[in-house]
Amino acid sequence: MEGDLQRTLGRNLRAHRQKLGLSQEQFAERLGYHRTYVGGIEQGLRNLSLRSLERLALDLNIDPLELLREASPATE
Amino acid sequence: MEGDLQRTLGRNLRAHRQKLGLSQEQFAERLGYHRTYVGGIEQGLRNLSLRSLERLALDLNIDPLELLREASPATE
Repeated sequence: MEGDLQRTLGRNLRAHRQKLGLSQEQFAERLGYHRTYVGGIEQGLRNLSLRSLERLALDLNIDPLELLREASPATE
Repeated sequence: MEGDLQRTLGRNLRAHRQKLGLSQEQFAERLGYHRTYVGGIEQGLRNLSLRSLERLALDLNIDPLELLREASPATE
């Protein structure tokens, strides 16, 4: 269904942030993003372009496809 | 490197089209897209959004991540 990718991205970004034990504010500051940008992505509201996705993955030092993969139930 | 995803998408779309034995014109017509849109994606020039990627994958009846995965050398 359309919009699934950005919702999956949001869940994965939130999980990544929480693994780091950071608030959205701290996480956004570390990445040099505005907090509302991070919040919007985590809520699945932002329809990122492929390049924006690449920049985000580069900043997080992970593979862009990792951000789009459905987390397996075990890691929920 | 930035832009890698759209170049990988382009290679995968071209491979998918060639498997179907279609020209860009025929492929675009079948999908209801303009030929230059298909050509631009295949050349890795279009920075699609996640939703556009989803629509393309839906039209091709494949998983969007399939379009972003590096083809293994065997399938080159």
